[in-house]
Amino acid sequence: MSKDALYSSLTLPCEKKLVLLVLDGVGDIAARSTNWRTPLEAARTPKLDAIARESAMGRMIPVADGITPGSGPGHLGLFGYDPLKFEVGRGVIEALGLDIELKAGDVAARANFCTLDAKGIVTDRRAGRIPTEVNAKLCEKLRQIKKAGGAEVIIKSGKSHRFVVVFRAKGLAGPLTDSDPHREGAPIQTVKPTGKASAAQKRAAKIVNDFYKQALPLLKSDHPANGFLLRGIAHQPHLPDFRERYGLRAAAIATYPMYRGLAQLVGMSKIPCGETVESEFRAAAKQWANFDFFFIHVKATDMAGEDGNFDAKVEAIETVDKSLPQLLAQKPDVLAITGDHSTPVPMRGHSWHPQPVLLWSEVCGADGHARFTEKNANSGSLGMFKAKRLMRLMQANARMFNKFGA
Amino acid sequence: MSKDALYSSLTLPCEKKLVLLVLDGVGDIAARSTNWRTPLEAARTPKLDAIARESAMGRMIPVADGITPGSGPGHLGLFGYDPLKFEVGRGVIEALGLDIELKAGDVAARANFCTLDAKGIVTDRRAGRIPTEVNAKLCEKLRQIKKAGGAEVIIKSGKSHRFVVVFRAKGLAGPLTDSDPHREGAPIQTVKPTGKASAAQKRAAKIVNDFYKQALPLLKSDHPANGFLLRGIAHQPHLPDFRERYGLRAAAIATYPMYRGLAQLVGMSKIPCGETVESEFRAAAKQWANFDFFFIHVKATDMAGEDGNFDAKVEAIETVDKSLPQLLAQKPDVLAITGDHSTPVPMRGHSWHPQPVLLWSEVCGADGHARFTEKNANSGSLGMFKAKRLMRLMQANARMFNKFGA
Repeated sequence: MSKDALYSSLTLPCEKKLVLLVLDGVGDIAARSTNWRTPLEAARTPKLDAIARESAMGRMIPVADGITPGSGPGHLGLFGYDPLKFEVGRGVIEALGLDIELKAGDVAARANFCTLDAKGIVTDRRAGRIPTEVNAKLCEKLRQIKKAGGAEVIIKSGKSHRFVVVFRAKGLAGPLTDSDPHREGAPIQTVKPTGKASAAQKRAAKIVNDFYKQALPLLKSDHPANGFLLRGIAHQPHLPDFRERYGLRAAAIATYPMYRGLAQLVGMSKIPCGETVESEFRAAAKQWANFDFFFIHVKATDMAGEDGNFDAKVEAIETVDKSLPQLLAQKPDVLAITGDHSTPVPMRGHSWHPQPVLLWSEVCGADGHARFTEKNANSGSLGMFKAKRLMRLMQANARMFNKFGA
Repeated sequence: MSKDALYSSLTLPCEKKLVLLVLDGVGDIAARSTNWRTPLEAARTPKLDAIARESAMGRMIPVADGITPGSGPGHLGLFGYDPLKFEVGRGVIEALGLDIELKAGDVAARANFCTLDAKGIVTDRRAGRIPTEVNAKLCEKLRQIKKAGGAEVIIKSGKSHRFVVVFRAKGLAGPLTDSDPHREGAPIQTVKPTGKASAAQKRAAKIVNDFYKQALPLLKSDHPANGFLLRGIAHQPHLPDFRERYGLRAAAIATYPMYRGLAQLVGMSKIPCGETVESEFRAAAKQWANFDFFFIHVKATDMAGEDGNFDAKVEAIETVDKSLPQLLAQKPDVLAITGDHSTPVPMRGHSWHPQPVLLWSEVCGADGHARFTEKNANSGSLGMFKAKRLMRLMQANARMFNKFGA
């Protein structure tokens, strides 16, 4: 019996409320430059400390040893999907980040405006980083193209020179090669299927190339943004439905579109919220009766890590701590607090270091640690485990599994 | 995507220096007979302690739970090759131990001189443990045989009654059954292929049996060493090239031939050195510019464990500690210190107990433990993991992997 079949066969109806609170990139490393402390160690977190004492802890490997994940694989893992089995292409991630409502089978491309010379050679891959307002106007112009090769075309402008193109039709698939030559001095490349080309990929390539034929003439006089390059052309992968897999009606609460989008990919419902952690917790409270599972995403920890700003990361953690009572007032039955990966301040970026995780329920088995830190998590009862296994532990703590065997 | 494919697709050129320092059999167990201490705990190691404070630690399962590895599987694991997938036959290990330069496809056999009676029955499987000098003379005699069944024959004498025979030709393969009956009172056995016999195995068996036909008459009058027995007849396995697999130019430094040989099997370059740890570190320093990765093997810890000599094991560890500054002077970017397995003093032999490992780099994430011991490793941030995964963590710490996914 496969493990998934085992879990399915034992799953009971959910009678609890589960919360997965993701402090993006919260894990960190003790290093000389931070005086051998981590932000979790340095932060004053009285509310979190109180939970920690009653919690089980551990550390989670986001994808595989030594592998640093992007946000896509990081979150798929947290949602219990093997990030090596289910890959989400860059174009799809970018589309989700611009809040485009993707449908199954949509092929999405990350796009850059670029500058072409008279012979069609790329002379600036970023079109001098044109202002966002110019970008918006050019995208409006491109929206004259309603169909390319029979597919619906959806265009959404981003910041500076960046935008997204989505091709919607039946029977399309990625991945396709980039039209971006990845260097100046070369022409726009014809898009082709990668690997063993399927009929669906070939169809998608034809559509993209047809789109180019219609689009380039429209931009002819828009120097420096008289061309565009496509990258990461991929279709939205089919992911097993979260509710079917876990028996949980799930809500996604995130201030950034990409994270809501990743949750939507597995079938979670997106819940509107404001810009603060407090407003996210308020949104959860408002929808408390309608869902069993709440994925709440906090971005500030990751941003501070990326900026290499220790104090900002500490502050981001303390902000969550201050707002926690609002979430706890709803009395969640199972609460997991973790990151989708580590974003160590000394590294100014994502890393492979296993993120600490705290799991609380009435039956979690308290490790008795006074605080939620990386070091305490090292000797927690959950041990070191793959992030994709967290969902099953949360379900177990929600008493959602029958006994296996007599 | 397979994990190996994932790692390959993300691997960046190496710009760092990595050192894997193997204290053979360093792991130990606290037991009544050692007053509940381990040699790592009892040793005075100020240099190691200073590194330990800034390191991440964990424990490594050499092969599988409860499995005690020989040196072959132990080292293959450390080099990142699954010891269950890549088996190195006993004959090959023995040949490497006698510093024979094996080529891919060579079939090697571990050989013992033995005593035969007039009817060809084995009366002493070790020929009364003849002196090494006699052994050398007999091997010289056997070297009259240049070819057997078309294959080149290479003979090298070892200690007492032991020697090695290598058969070199195209299209040979092991494993073959032993000619050794494994008891006195039986004749020398005809050698046969094991399992589903391949054509290459059949060819090899024919060659070995032809060798016997030529060799036994030569020894006829050399009582008590008038015969010989072959065991562990195996071909050198094909192992994926270390440099291709990891993008690392690797050097092997070891005072014992077998360990150099194991490293050579995966394509490492053997670097000459003297008999002491200091001379090994000096050899590394001399070659520092020419390699990215240095495997340095220290034998004394294992020998002391095999002898059940607690004080000698403590001393072996302290000797390494005293020499460490010489290695650290080269400023390695990534340093891993561990064993290929445990050789607990109370057990006087290899064991299955996961060996402690220390991993240092600027971005390892310090666990803050004051010393490198088995107990501290138990609560380290690396957790408990298979030894074959260490290489990937070392690469990550050398910043050799791109981010996976967006």
